[in-house]
Amino acid sequence: MIELVILDVDGTITDQNRIISTKAIESIRAAEQNGTVVSLISGNVIPVMYALKIFLGINGPVFAENGGVEFNTDITPFFTIDEPMRFYKKLLELNLCEGILTNAWRYCSVGYFPKDEKVDKIYELSKGYNVELTDSGFSWHILNRGQNKGYAIRKLIEEFSLSPDKILVCGDSLNDIPMFSLPVKKAVPNNARQELKSMANYISQKDHGDGIADILSRISSF
Amino acid sequence: MIELVILDVDGTITDQNRIISTKAIESIRAAEQNGTVVSLISGNVIPVMYALKIFLGINGPVFAENGGVEFNTDITPFFTIDEPMRFYKKLLELNLCEGILTNAWRYCSVGYFPKDEKVDKIYELSKGYNVELTDSGFSWHILNRGQNKGYAIRKLIEEFSLSPDKILVCGDSLNDIPMFSLPVKKAVPNNARQELKSMANYISQKDHGDGIADILSRISSF
Repeated sequence: MIELVILDVDGTITDQNRIISTKAIESIRAAEQNGTVVSLISGNVIPVMYALKIFLGINGPVFAENGGVEFNTDITPFFTIDEPMRFYKKLLELNLCEGILTNAWRYCSVGYFPKDEKVDKIYELSKGYNVELTDSGFSWHILNRGQNKGYAIRKLIEEFSLSPDKILVCGDSLNDIPMFSLPVKKAVPNNARQELKSMANYISQKDHGDGIADILSRISSF
Repeated sequence: MIELVILDVDGTITDQNRIISTKAIESIRAAEQNGTVVSLISGNVIPVMYALKIFLGINGPVFAENGGVEFNTDITPFFTIDEPMRFYKKLLELNLCEGILTNAWRYCSVGYFPKDEKVDKIYELSKGYNVELTDSGFSWHILNRGQNKGYAIRKLIEEFSLSPDKILVCGDSLNDIPMFSLPVKKAVPNNARQELKSMANYISQKDHGDGIADILSRISSF
């Protein structure tokens, strides 16, 4: 019996243009009314996740910056921004990237768009720093090494003494792999990357928010 | 014919617990598909309004901090935080209020909860500062004098050379009065304060998001 569902946001409860699915919202509310706690996790920033928690009426904690910061009643960063910022400044100095608007509200990561397909060059340079890079499908992020969605879910499992097999995670992109690597249940909408589909217990035939509504309607079968 | 609709957020497209109405979201999307531009305005902070613009897919600019900051493609504050912060520090020194979480993300206002019904005392003190106070119904805000929702709508009218009679504003609380005082069309959900109902061209029989869905379905009649 699933007690906690952790959902990625962009591409999972939104479409490819980041428009949130009202079907997904209604299915989240129905799941919570049936006693399942829902959490959200994203590469986006804490005030954006705070907004989703408030406006969607989500009972679980929410995680921003790929799992680097938690908001439940207070904001708890698990890392600092020092090392990601040191690498980001090097990239700017070498004119390899552009920053993103939400960097104003980050606690432990930096978002960027690589310039002129400089992805490989940026990866190579990152080896000299204590960082890791990830692509949310909407922008790239510089994170502290070990800062990923799997880290946050392990924190959550500890904090609430949860049994991993009572947790269901849903996502669509490469930055969801660290949480898909845990011994939890996994489900994906049909638009998910093949890498995630190959790890999933259930693949919905439907995309994005319709897929999440489908998954949440079957939650008793996981 | 209404070309632009400006909606308050808390209590207007959300219920009294700040849960967003999926009916309101669907009606906003339908209005925009029919060629009406929708904007949002709130006492809340820019990253929260940014989140609503992105996830709801709103075409118009959004305004935070009671009209003190605009986000369209960039963030444009119309005021500074200096004077609200000076008054807020005095209130803290006198132990008259507590701050709110979103103060970390404010550009030109400060949010607070008055302690022990100290509302009148705070009002009295504020006369010595170049600020005004407002109650969103969810928290209190210290603003620069002249910083209100009416100021932001006048900015919008100038910026886009709009005709005021082609603008419809909707809100429910006292901080909506400055935009209801402009020569624009006004509509309210049934939960609106009496002060706003008495200024409105149309009062929906329905509350909150259901009221907004009702109002937007009648937009051709305004």
